[in-house]
Amino acid sequence: MSLDPKRTVRELKELRALTASEDGAQRVAWTDVWLKSRTWFESKLHGLPVEHHFDAAGNRWVTLPGASDRALVLGSHLDSVPNGGWLDGSLGVLAALEVLRRIASEFKGRPPVTIRLVDFADEEGARFGRSLLGSSAFAGTHSVEADRVRTDKDGIRMDQALSRCGVEMDQFPDARHEQKNAAAYLELHIEQGPVLERLMLPLGVVLGTKGVERHALTFHGQEAHSGSTPMKARRDALAAAAKLALEIRSIAGRHPDAVCTIGSLKTFPGIVTAVVGRSECSLDQRDLSAAVLAQMYREAREASERIAKEEKCTVEWSRIWNIEPIQFHRDLVELCRQAVMETAGVAHQLPSGPLHDAAEVSRAGIPTVMMFVQSVGGISHNKVEDTSEEHLEMAVRAFDRLATKTMQWIQSSIA
Amino acid sequence: MSLDPKRTVRELKELRALTASEDGAQRVAWTDVWLKSRTWFESKLHGLPVEHHFDAAGNRWVTLPGASDRALVLGSHLDSVPNGGWLDGSLGVLAALEVLRRIASEFKGRPPVTIRLVDFADEEGARFGRSLLGSSAFAGTHSVEADRVRTDKDGIRMDQALSRCGVEMDQFPDARHEQKNAAAYLELHIEQGPVLERLMLPLGVVLGTKGVERHALTFHGQEAHSGSTPMKARRDALAAAAKLALEIRSIAGRHPDAVCTIGSLKTFPGIVTAVVGRSECSLDQRDLSAAVLAQMYREAREASERIAKEEKCTVEWSRIWNIEPIQFHRDLVELCRQAVMETAGVAHQLPSGPLHDAAEVSRAGIPTVMMFVQSVGGISHNKVEDTSEEHLEMAVRAFDRLATKTMQWIQSSIA
Repeated sequence: MSLDPKRTVRELKELRALTASEDGAQRVAWTDVWLKSRTWFESKLHGLPVEHHFDAAGNRWVTLPGASDRALVLGSHLDSVPNGGWLDGSLGVLAALEVLRRIASEFKGRPPVTIRLVDFADEEGARFGRSLLGSSAFAGTHSVEADRVRTDKDGIRMDQALSRCGVEMDQFPDARHEQKNAAAYLELHIEQGPVLERLMLPLGVVLGTKGVERHALTFHGQEAHSGSTPMKARRDALAAAAKLALEIRSIAGRHPDAVCTIGSLKTFPGIVTAVVGRSECSLDQRDLSAAVLAQMYREAREASERIAKEEKCTVEWSRIWNIEPIQFHRDLVELCRQAVMETAGVAHQLPSGPLHDAAEVSRAGIPTVMMFVQSVGGISHNKVEDTSEEHLEMAVRAFDRLATKTMQWIQSSIA
Repeated sequence: MSLDPKRTVRELKELRALTASEDGAQRVAWTDVWLKSRTWFESKLHGLPVEHHFDAAGNRWVTLPGASDRALVLGSHLDSVPNGGWLDGSLGVLAALEVLRRIASEFKGRPPVTIRLVDFADEEGARFGRSLLGSSAFAGTHSVEADRVRTDKDGIRMDQALSRCGVEMDQFPDARHEQKNAAAYLELHIEQGPVLERLMLPLGVVLGTKGVERHALTFHGQEAHSGSTPMKARRDALAAAAKLALEIRSIAGRHPDAVCTIGSLKTFPGIVTAVVGRSECSLDQRDLSAAVLAQMYREAREASERIAKEEKCTVEWSRIWNIEPIQFHRDLVELCRQAVMETAGVAHQLPSGPLHDAAEVSRAGIPTVMMFVQSVGGISHNKVEDTSEEHLEMAVRAFDRLATKTMQWIQSSIA
């Protein structure tokens, strides 16, 4: 049985028919629709010479034992955001399945290295606000206590919702045992951005995931009557935030792949007849280079203080969250480049802005790389998320080539 | 009995003790505290040779009949915003009372022209969102049907709340009868802005109330992932609003007294991980010149369209409300200038940014002028609102001078 990329497309459509409403994919982790998608996936394993089980964090592991215990791991996630797309995560899982089938067939059930497929649990964090949950548990970067008491919008506690799905949060640390013998991790994913489409390329080589600095900023000015306060007498906290919203574009613009975003801005008292006395905004900064990220953070901070002074305001910062950049493994990036080049003729390399399970696997010290396939319009987390079938099939072929090259790379490291 | 400005200050403190909590004045129209302030005011009329009654809109009228039916009207409002100041409105009513007492005494109960005091109902519109209610009914500019179904934050309908205070909205048009014989209207008010304080002047001559153009604007861009969308690929609706927030300062800056304010800005989806797809803001523009106001509105509109284009966004406008500038009566402005000059040695003339009952009285065709007294820090609608006692006393003296001059002006027009 040779590789059949068209089957992957068929299976993606089958999954969509099973788990999407007219508003898009509804495979939110720890819900019945998600469990249904996992049961459907299990049915696809019938007849394959594999063992499969769930680990302590609810990640599903499918193992095709090889001559060596050293394992090539292929994976992604089946869960989606509410009203999500048909490809985010599920493409990676179903492409991995197709590659597994090809290898099982080619090597008559006994490949030179072990092949494992993983469907990570709750990559999106859509229900409880904690993304990369399963892969964090696998990597051992997850601390349970902070998350146990999270609740969903209906007030249901996280540990209770997981327990209903057979996962006990106390056992999370045991998921780390699955790291044993993992020699490499590969993940195929849709880009979720417009870069490949703008370059008119089907595929891309992912260099790593960008580090993130995420802060909440508050500018304090002076609330004042909009009718009686002359322009020059104002301490307008909105003007300060507006200057920063424009300034962060220059800060990001000095680096080719850097991004800075103010996604939320709130004004207080926020009424038509008052000069804004206080403005609150979020700032999200990302780059693949830790040095660039640190520089951008410093520059934004300095700019905010200069602007506050210009506007006779003050500014306060508080960190919401941060993560360091993850650079994927140099050898695997090169193998991915070759696989994409051989399949598509051009191999553009780009960082990933969104985080992925691959970032957590890489943090566990396992050599990792990702491959991207073009997203139509760069849109994801939306029912209109799409990739052409031609590109999906190319992606499966390129990912299969990457798997073959990586198996050889693992073998050569054993030898 | 001669003019006693210290009594006005004492009475203002008495009213504060009776109607303020530790959070400030609580004389919100159509509430028990407001009714209490009006009962208290009525007690101050004992012994004066006056008739008093409420009109159909709940405005209180106190009349000292004169040799001529032609009437000089002095007034303001006793109602306040919640957590308001001790002077906004009440200063004007109590200064008018002091002037009425002086005239009644000087002319032994029979002045050459009739003197009337008015305490307008619900100037602030704090409970139902409709300001200048009583004075609009008096001026006949008020249309009842639109307001009848307004509700307060507890869901109580406006017409029901007014009925509880003895006011039937159906009868509102009858309030216009009080216009009969009104020859001039004078109002003393705190500035509620920082202009006089910055000039180190106690008093000001008010040229009129600024016209207002008030609009809601929406910029439409493209919601996108903050991690995967390159800076150059963005259509950021916040960046467009930010540019406009800065641009309106240039638009206002070309005219000496003009103001432009964005008091509210909302971002959608308004989350840290998404480029803003839609931003909504309010724009409030004011000037005393109708031509300047029209020019500023046109310039803001053009700027918003240019900015939207630059940012690959679109923009929509919708008018919330507008009112034309009200220029006070030329003769009365001159009399006010003389009164202020004689009292304070300097007579600065300025427009009022906030609206006042005087604007509605002027719209009814009654010659009108206002006098301002300095506000400490320019702050109003807040418990810290304040004016020095020295300035309050000067204001009462200057307002009394203005009343005398206006009586003579009315007499000369009769002759």
